[in-house]
Amino acid sequence: MSFKFLVSTLALALATPAAADVLVDNVEGLTIGEDGKLKRFTALVIDDEGKVAQILTARDEVPQTDFREDGDGAVMIPGLIDAHAHVMGIGIGALTLDLSDTNSLEEALDKIRRFAAENEARPWILGRGWNQEKWGLGRFPTAAELDSAVADRPVYLQRVDGHAGWANTMAMEAAGITATTESPAGGRVERMPGSQAPSGVFVDAAESLMTRAIPAPRPTERDLAFAKAQEVLHRNGITAVADMGTTIEDWQTFRRAGDKDALTLRIMAYAAGPDEMELIAGARPTPWLYDDKLRMNGIKIYLDGALGSRGAWLKQPYADDPGNTGLPLTGPAKLRNILVRAAQGNFQPAIHAIGTAANADALAAIAELSESFPGDRRWRIEHAQIIDPADLSGFGQNGVIASMQPVHQTSDRSMAEARLGPDRLDGAYAWNSILQLGGRLAFGSDAPVESPDPFAGLAAATTRMDANGEPFGGWRPEERVNREQALAGFTSAAAYAGFAEGRFGRLLPGERADFVLIDRDPLLASPAELRATKVLETWVGGRKVYEAD
Amino acid sequence: MSFKFLVSTLALALATPAAADVLVDNVEGLTIGEDGKLKRFTALVIDDEGKVAQILTARDEVPQTDFREDGDGAVMIPGLIDAHAHVMGIGIGALTLDLSDTNSLEEALDKIRRFAAENEARPWILGRGWNQEKWGLGRFPTAAELDSAVADRPVYLQRVDGHAGWANTMAMEAAGITATTESPAGGRVERMPGSQAPSGVFVDAAESLMTRAIPAPRPTERDLAFAKAQEVLHRNGITAVADMGTTIEDWQTFRRAGDKDALTLRIMAYAAGPDEMELIAGARPTPWLYDDKLRMNGIKIYLDGALGSRGAWLKQPYADDPGNTGLPLTGPAKLRNILVRAAQGNFQPAIHAIGTAANADALAAIAELSESFPGDRRWRIEHAQIIDPADLSGFGQNGVIASMQPVHQTSDRSMAEARLGPDRLDGAYAWNSILQLGGRLAFGSDAPVESPDPFAGLAAATTRMDANGEPFGGWRPEERVNREQALAGFTSAAAYAGFAEGRFGRLLPGERADFVLIDRDPLLASPAELRATKVLETWVGGRKVYEAD
Repeated sequence: MSFKFLVSTLALALATPAAADVLVDNVEGLTIGEDGKLKRFTALVIDDEGKVAQILTARDEVPQTDFREDGDGAVMIPGLIDAHAHVMGIGIGALTLDLSDTNSLEEALDKIRRFAAENEARPWILGRGWNQEKWGLGRFPTAAELDSAVADRPVYLQRVDGHAGWANTMAMEAAGITATTESPAGGRVERMPGSQAPSGVFVDAAESLMTRAIPAPRPTERDLAFAKAQEVLHRNGITAVADMGTTIEDWQTFRRAGDKDALTLRIMAYAAGPDEMELIAGARPTPWLYDDKLRMNGIKIYLDGALGSRGAWLKQPYADDPGNTGLPLTGPAKLRNILVRAAQGNFQPAIHAIGTAANADALAAIAELSESFPGDRRWRIEHAQIIDPADLSGFGQNGVIASMQPVHQTSDRSMAEARLGPDRLDGAYAWNSILQLGGRLAFGSDAPVESPDPFAGLAAATTRMDANGEPFGGWRPEERVNREQALAGFTSAAAYAGFAEGRFGRLLPGERADFVLIDRDPLLASPAELRATKVLETWVGGRKVYEAD
Repeated sequence: MSFKFLVSTLALALATPAAADVLVDNVEGLTIGEDGKLKRFTALVIDDEGKVAQILTARDEVPQTDFREDGDGAVMIPGLIDAHAHVMGIGIGALTLDLSDTNSLEEALDKIRRFAAENEARPWILGRGWNQEKWGLGRFPTAAELDSAVADRPVYLQRVDGHAGWANTMAMEAAGITATTESPAGGRVERMPGSQAPSGVFVDAAESLMTRAIPAPRPTERDLAFAKAQEVLHRNGITAVADMGTTIEDWQTFRRAGDKDALTLRIMAYAAGPDEMELIAGARPTPWLYDDKLRMNGIKIYLDGALGSRGAWLKQPYADDPGNTGLPLTGPAKLRNILVRAAQGNFQPAIHAIGTAANADALAAIAELSESFPGDRRWRIEHAQIIDPADLSGFGQNGVIASMQPVHQTSDRSMAEARLGPDRLDGAYAWNSILQLGGRLAFGSDAPVESPDPFAGLAAATTRMDANGEPFGGWRPEERVNREQALAGFTSAAAYAGFAEGRFGRLLPGERADFVLIDRDPLLASPAELRATKVLETWVGGRKVYEAD
């Protein structure tokens, strides 16, 4: 078959007229600029693709656009990026019953009854936050009491500290709990007074007798939870997230949202394991999907556990548990195997490392791999909490990115002092040291473990003080970062950490028009004021996705 | 924030100039038309979205277009649609070694050796088609002989009839086969003469001792297999397929291709089960993705087995196995539960039903469900092979679609006569009866069980004769369909069966420009000529995806 060229290609080059562009003016705009420094502006033009066409200062001529939005003098910052969160955990958590504000058993039962009535379609009622001490009950509540509120479906509610759970009779039946069920090592099945009958409360390791019976959420429930997660994050001013530990179920949820044009959050996904990574992405990371809203970037690897439960892997024993150094969850050989498998496909590894030994081994593995896999790899270490000062310089080498959560520092301070003792804290949450050594930071929240509120993160990052202003002057304040660095950590640097620079994270021409309008200037507000920042509007890709009442 | 409307919406309504349109002329075009009847044309215009803009006859004025393709007088028909195939099975099968053309053990070993060398990345070498009788060997081949060709990787090769497999030593080691491995019921582990040592050949049920050790293909291997499947199908003139029994692994493979713009086959997917259906699609079928290339339509349900293995569920016992009626794989209550779950989400069920009892129960279940779930449901019965004449009228009710495979009739004829006896064949492969009763047909191949060649399907559908012209005049020729009906079964009716009418399946303005150029007119060719049709080019969405050498 012959192929004939009939017309000039010039005819094909006619520009498509813009669908609509929008001027957002009367704002106090700020962004990290091309030079990595703060840049201020007063108006922004969004093009018809939802990208920033132009940012303007008072001196610039205002261009002609199809639409205009008046910013009413609000402060405009780039959409905030959470470099370490668990998107589905946020959504599923937000859909469960919260009893933390109840002051009596009666009040709690009332709230449980109402929640069950409002959520008829849910096969199980799940919740958390009860505290029998606060209720003045003087004992644990019972399954029979819970049955008086909900008897037609299983109910399981975690105590405020997560160390006990309260079940109704149907939940215990579903879990096969009877008078002959024994308490497991490290846990206790509570009994009725003077009887072997289980009372309905399961303490510590006994909780798993119950939790294993709770069905995994169905895809339709996941869709609801994901919509809720987007809502929660946008309300907090967050427009993009690195999702840590994405399963195939999570990924399908994101795709279902994307397929029906309901994906408003940008997600940089890190698979829950090598098999999930390949099942989702195949031989290479996926392309950016849905106009830069979703990409499978790489793989999350748990090198060790957490400090609180003494699962973090330390070089020396825990100060409050001599002889225990914690353990690697992924041994050195396996870590290197997974890293090779990831690197061969250009997948980006995100290595969870909390303790000194874990961070040392992560850095060593990265140094070894960097010889075989040169180039722009952006090896991520997640948390990077407790680093042997002798190892700190490793964060300035091989393009390592320390993905850290400022609020963990303020939450964990006393616990970290107990676990490590006063003399081993020099490399703890060492944000400034890492920057000074030429390393790269990205900031996040670890939500739902902590609140996703990035303004709390910005305040902690710049003060090392908690919400109560404690300790005054900050804990090891030499590790504070300045306000520009903190803002970069939650915007441009978090985008870079996910290979998204140039796509979003800054309000510069060509990047996606993701921004937040807030009621105060985060570069000028006091720490207390910063924590009280009100998000007025959140925009993603030139579309408003949240507006305060 | 205030919102100000600055310019007239008229400015936004400016037409986008066409990227490029293409005239394909000098063809003998034919398609099923708007009225369901054959329509002929001489040229076709493709618009810039890859849709049919216009079809022209000799009397029409030729429009101005950017490009022109000369059809050189070829016959143009709509892209053929296979309403029942297993896409990944086609690809994986096409990537394995085919020994069916070897005439001696030496020749086979040579071919195996070459294949292994050409496929270094494959962890296992898999193949099929050997026949020691044809080789004149007088005995089964041995593991040691296979080791002489490939000793560095496991090899497993199925005999031509699928009733035996030949392993090398590494494969037997991987499967844990030793001299103490016993033959299972219904199977035999072949032994070396005068020894208990396994010889390397596994007969019938003993095959599973080996096949369970073969690792599932990895996603990267699936990507290769899928590319191969697209190639095979396009070479056969097929542009769209109903994929029966889509797993999450299959779906991810299709999406990876779609995400990188490498999806050239249109796939109407039917999930392998309710959990896969929900994991993939959530509460409702997915939208049409990638410009009408992929949609999760519904669910495949196995009501019974196959006739050959006497797994089809019959009302009366098998003529050649008195007392055996086969069995439902999905019992009546479970079938209805799955159908309700599907129908609630507007998922389309595709019920595999081969035997008389299976077809009767499928029709009964559909009739029951149709009361609760009215509307356009298009309940599909797959195969619909052996129907009690008393039940045939059910195919004209409730919008049932009979998704049938013409070549199965020619392949199964003698076997069906043996299984059912001569007196129970009135409702066997009853294509014409179904049409006459007002039912709807869709045609497919069941590839890789049969060849995907749709021209063999068209010939079988219109003649009830096999490739050798047997039996002369056709088997139960009253069940032939005419040529328009056969073409519709592989085009417009197959699209309708997948809710794709108006999107593809016909060459009418607004539908996707999916077409095939062939070297003869299927409405005029003799059966033998029809089977020898040569596909010259295959186009999907206005893009050429195959061209013969």
